[in-house]
Formats: sequence, C-alpha cells, structure tokens
Amino acid sequence: MIQPVTIALDCMGSDHGPREAVQAAARLTLERDDLRVILVGDVDQLGPLLDELSYDPARLSLLHTPQWVEPEDHPRTVLLDKPRASILEACDVVAAGRASAVVTAGSTGAAILAAAQRLGRIPGVRRAALAAVTPTEQTHGPKKDPFALLLDVGATLDASARDLVTFAIMGSAYAAAISGNPAPRVALLSNGTEAHKGPAEVVEAHRLLSELRGIEFAGNVEGLDIPRGTVDVVVANGFLGNVVLKMIEGVGEVIADLAADAYARKYLWRLGLTLLSSGIEQIQAVMDWESYGGAPILGFTQPVIKAHGRSRAPAIANACKVAAKASRSDMVRVVERSVAQLPTDAEELLA
Amino acid sequence: MIQPVTIALDCMGSDHGPREAVQAAARLTLERDDLRVILVGDVDQLGPLLDELSYDPARLSLLHTPQWVEPEDHPRTVLLDKPRASILEACDVVAAGRASAVVTAGSTGAAILAAAQRLGRIPGVRRAALAAVTPTEQTHGPKKDPFALLLDVGATLDASARDLVTFAIMGSAYAAAISGNPAPRVALLSNGTEAHKGPAEVVEAHRLLSELRGIEFAGNVEGLDIPRGTVDVVVANGFLGNVVLKMIEGVGEVIADLAADAYARKYLWRLGLTLLSSGIEQIQAVMDWESYGGAPILGFTQPVIKAHGRSRAPAIANACKVAAKASRSDMVRVVERSVAQLPTDAEELLA
Repeated sequence: MIQPVTIALDCMGSDHGPREAVQAAARLTLERDDLRVILVGDVDQLGPLLDELSYDPARLSLLHTPQWVEPEDHPRTVLLDKPRASILEACDVVAAGRASAVVTAGSTGAAILAAAQRLGRIPGVRRAALAAVTPTEQTHGPKKDPFALLLDVGATLDASARDLVTFAIMGSAYAAAISGNPAPRVALLSNGTEAHKGPAEVVEAHRLLSELRGIEFAGNVEGLDIPRGTVDVVVANGFLGNVVLKMIEGVGEVIADLAADAYARKYLWRLGLTLLSSGIEQIQAVMDWESYGGAPILGFTQPVIKAHGRSRAPAIANACKVAAKASRSDMVRVVERSVAQLPTDAEELLA
Repeated sequence: MIQPVTIALDCMGSDHGPREAVQAAARLTLERDDLRVILVGDVDQLGPLLDELSYDPARLSLLHTPQWVEPEDHPRTVLLDKPRASILEACDVVAAGRASAVVTAGSTGAAILAAAQRLGRIPGVRRAALAAVTPTEQTHGPKKDPFALLLDVGATLDASARDLVTFAIMGSAYAAAISGNPAPRVALLSNGTEAHKGPAEVVEAHRLLSELRGIEFAGNVEGLDIPRGTVDVVVANGFLGNVVLKMIEGVGEVIADLAADAYARKYLWRLGLTLLSSGIEQIQAVMDWESYGGAPILGFTQPVIKAHGRSRAPAIANACKVAAKASRSDMVRVVERSVAQLPTDAEELLA
C-alpha cells in the first residue's frame, strides 16, 4: 500500500464558511485510504459540522485555533495581530512534520506570508510564486488538459531575471508532477518572440534559461499564445501574471453575459442557443478552470495549495488530492537540482 | 468652410503593398473637401496605381522617396541604413509645416522612432506612447463606442511614474478629441483597485494622478475590467499593455476557431449557429476593432496614426479621418496644460 499523506486543511476564511472544507475532508476519509486530514480552525464551528457527517475517525483529526484570517483583514498585518491564526498553525503542523502539505481556501496574501514565515524555502529559491491554470484552445500533456500553467500571478510583483528562471524551473516541475507531462514546454511571456524582446530582466532570464539543462525552454511567447495554449507553462512577474489571469476571468464573464443577453432578447437566438447548448457547455467547462484544483504556492519544501475562496466541497477535496500528488512527487528535488545550475551571487556580481 | 487638413500618407511597407493606401487617398479626395493627401513613397509604384483611379488632383500630391522600410528590416537600425525612408520623409513633411499629420500602415517600431527623430515632442512629455482600442462589453462616450483606449502598448516598455501620468493625460485628451467624450474616465492597470497596489511606479503614479486637475481619474482597475470596459482609458507600461493587447487578439481568434470547429462538426450546431448569426456578427464587429481607425502614437506636437499592417483601403481612409480630427482638436494644448501641473525634475529629486 502507498504511504498515506496527511494534509493540514485550513478550514477558515473562505467565502462559504468552514462547512465546505469539513464536508470535503469527511468524504475524502471514506473515499481515499491514502489520505489523512487534519482540520485546522475554530473547534466550536468545526465540531458541530463534523457531527452531522459520516467520516472515518482514524483518518481525520481536528486542531483548534482561537484565531483566523477574515476577508476584511489586511494580509500584511493580520499575521502579527493574530499569531495563532489557522493558516499559521496549518503551516506549523507541516513544519513540525505532522502533515506533508497545506490546503486553504482563505486569503491568498495571508497564505503566501504564512508559508514564507513558517515553512522552509527550497535551497536556492529566493522568492515564492503563485501559479494558476488558464484555459487554452490546445490541450496539454498525456491527459490532454485544456489548460496551461501560468506563474507568478501575484506573489512576487517585481521579479529579477533569476526569480523568473526559478519560476520556470518550479512551474516545469509542478506541471510534470500534476499533469504527468515528463517534459513540459516552458516559455517567458514577453512583447515579442525574439530573444532580445522585453525588459532587461526578461532578456537576461531568456539567456539563462537557454543554457539550463533539464528544462524544455521554448523561448518567449506573446499575449496571443495564452488563449491558444502554445506552451504548457508560461512565466511572468507577479504583476503581469496577475493582470493576465484576471483578464481571462473577465473575458469568461463577458462571454457569459453576452450569451445571457442574447438568450433574453430574441426567440430565434434562444432556439439557436438551445441547439448549441452542448457546445457552450464545453466552452464553459474550459473556462471554469477553478474546478481543476487550486493554485499552488511554489518555492517551499512542502506543497501549499490555495483553493479559490468560492470553492465548494468538491473543489476543496480536489485541492487536497493535488496537494497529496505534489507531496508524493520528487518536484522539490528536481527544483533543487535545477536551481543549483544557476550562477551564485558572487558569479552574478562578476558577470 | 473648415480649413483643410493635409495628411502625409506613408504608402510603403504594409502587408498588401501600396495599392490600399493609394485607393484610400483617391477616394478621400472625392468624398471630403476638408482633406488633402500627400502620398509618400516610391513613385514608380504609386504612379501607375494612381493612374488607374479617379481622384481630385487639386487635393492629392505625390512625394517620391527612394527608400522605405521593409517588414524584415530591423526597426532600430533601418532608419540609419535608409535615411530617406518614406516614414522619415513623411515626418519631415509634417515637421516642415507642409502637412499636419502622419498616417502609416508600415512598421510600428520604425514609425515610433521616425516620429521621435523628426517631430517635436509636446513640452513636458518625455516618452511616447502607442495607444490602441480594445473591445469592451460596456460602451463609451456619447457615440456609445464598444471599445476603450489602452496605452502604452509597446513604445515605452519600462515607464516611470511620471511617464504613466503623461500617458494618462495624453490618453484622456485623445479620447476626448476622437470620441467626443468631454471627460473620459482614466485608470491605471494594476493588480488590485486599492491605491497601494502594484509596483512602486504605479503606486506613485496613482498619487500624482489623484492630485491632478482636469482629468477624470478613476483609480486602479484590474485585468477583469479590460473586457468589461469599466473605464474609457486604461494606462499601463508598454510591456504590460502589449501583452494585454495581443491577448485580446488571441481570445478573438480562439473564439472564432471554436465557433468554426462547432460549425464543422455537428448539423444541429450548424443550425444553431445560423440562427445565432446576427448575434455572432455583433460580437465579431466588436472584436474587429481594427476597423475603428488605427493606433495613435502620442507625445508629439502633430498626430501620427499607425494603421494595422493588414489594413485595406477603407481602414486607411478611416485612419486619415481620425488623424485630421486629432489635428483639428486642441489635444496638444490640453496635454501641455496638464503636464505643466506635474512636479519638475528638481522638485522630484527633492521629494
């Protein structure tokens, strides 16, 4: 039997309250004998929710925390104000070796800062990256996933050339671990495909990646290539990545609105849409990429998966499965080995 | 009668050859008595094309240039190698006061550099910006335009806080001149709506814009707001703007592909699409924003309009009309007055 993986599941601070996380965990204990879950949060809320459900008590435990991050808290100061917040305690459980991965549907900013404070970074990685999947026309990997990985989407707004290179390495290792793609094609997002295009840090990252072994570097891609899905992993600084990710969300919304508007207005359109419904559902499934399991916060020696704040139980369960998969993979070693090829600080200063 | 405006029309270097520009000019001389056109380019090519057409010779003249920029030329070096290139001569004609605006469907990079070399910058403006329109769900201005203005989209990759503020001022003045919107709402593109969100230069630009009179500053917008069209003018550095613009182009392509694919596959879908066709045309018209007249290169005392390389005669004619409108407006004075409110270099150093 496979060695079971224990997930520290932060149950607090999501849009729908702790119920979804508790339901996800209860169901996982009945469905998966290779997973254990530690529910982290307010026992007064979690206990009664758990009492209503059937679950395997051998695979589930509960860790009470008296504090948690609320949506209105400021991510930069909340961890000082609430030193026993559930996301910090979830990271501590992993740091202490009692669990192997953190999953949360709470504040992204607080999760990134908590992981930075309480978990060890992979040697050679200086800045964390938040990754997300974006829907694409082309499919990716052996499972023909209709989405690509984009990172960073907001953890590191200003990324140096070296940061961009480590993001490429981490994105490649994560895509390999999760989608089973042995050699994901990785590219830098720029304003042109030529090696000299882009700001200085992108040009320098291009040079470093061209010389790196063990990564399938495809050069630069442009904005066009994101919806097309030309490559499996797209690398950008957190500012650019965040704007791009939210833009995709906006495009999805606008298409849904236009379709709804057409539906309301005209009988013939309504009939047309009914006939087209299976096609539209297919497009919407691609757009609804959040059901594919959460955004990894990369750079730490243990996986941290951020599920969307709006996640329902199935999405949180999915995030737990992804976290277990990442924990079982050798992605940390792969990243460490690749990063070791990069010039050291002294070499960079002399270059 | 309105004072006529003369356009220096660079006819060389576009995808479809000089025919489209010559046709556009010939037609304009018959339709518009307030426009004059100087065709700039190789007389051996332009002459025979003109001979085939009917036009008003009182409103059209021809300026021969022995050189022009080819698509394969490197924009950074071509102007040194070809000092008599048509785009340079078109700018010279305007600098000499013989025409009031430049229109080109040739290389964007060469047009930006030629304008920087040969035309005067608006006092206080340090860096040029290339603007483009993006299709939006909400409409804008009194003409209910289904698109917003985005700048910079590639002229200035790294923009300082002050550059971003001048881009906001220029975008506002241009939108007012072209769309007849007396107070366009202008926003900075960032990774959150709060004033403290984004890299240092965006945060500082937010502060400067909040204090500026004569501009309708709406704060920060996120990626989501671009397809929605929350504001009339969106400001970003050239790197971010370029990625965003090309992404919109890519999304349009992918939607067209998905529709074509659905069309080919299934009889019921085909029927559905036929019934929906008027709605789909409407969406495609919004997507096909290039028909709305070209991208202005802003920052110079005379308008420079870059039409898309794929432009046919109607699009080039449209770009000429837009150039004339910009030339007649008081946008240069408006920009000058707004920029004068900004701190001078000395004040910035002391701040």
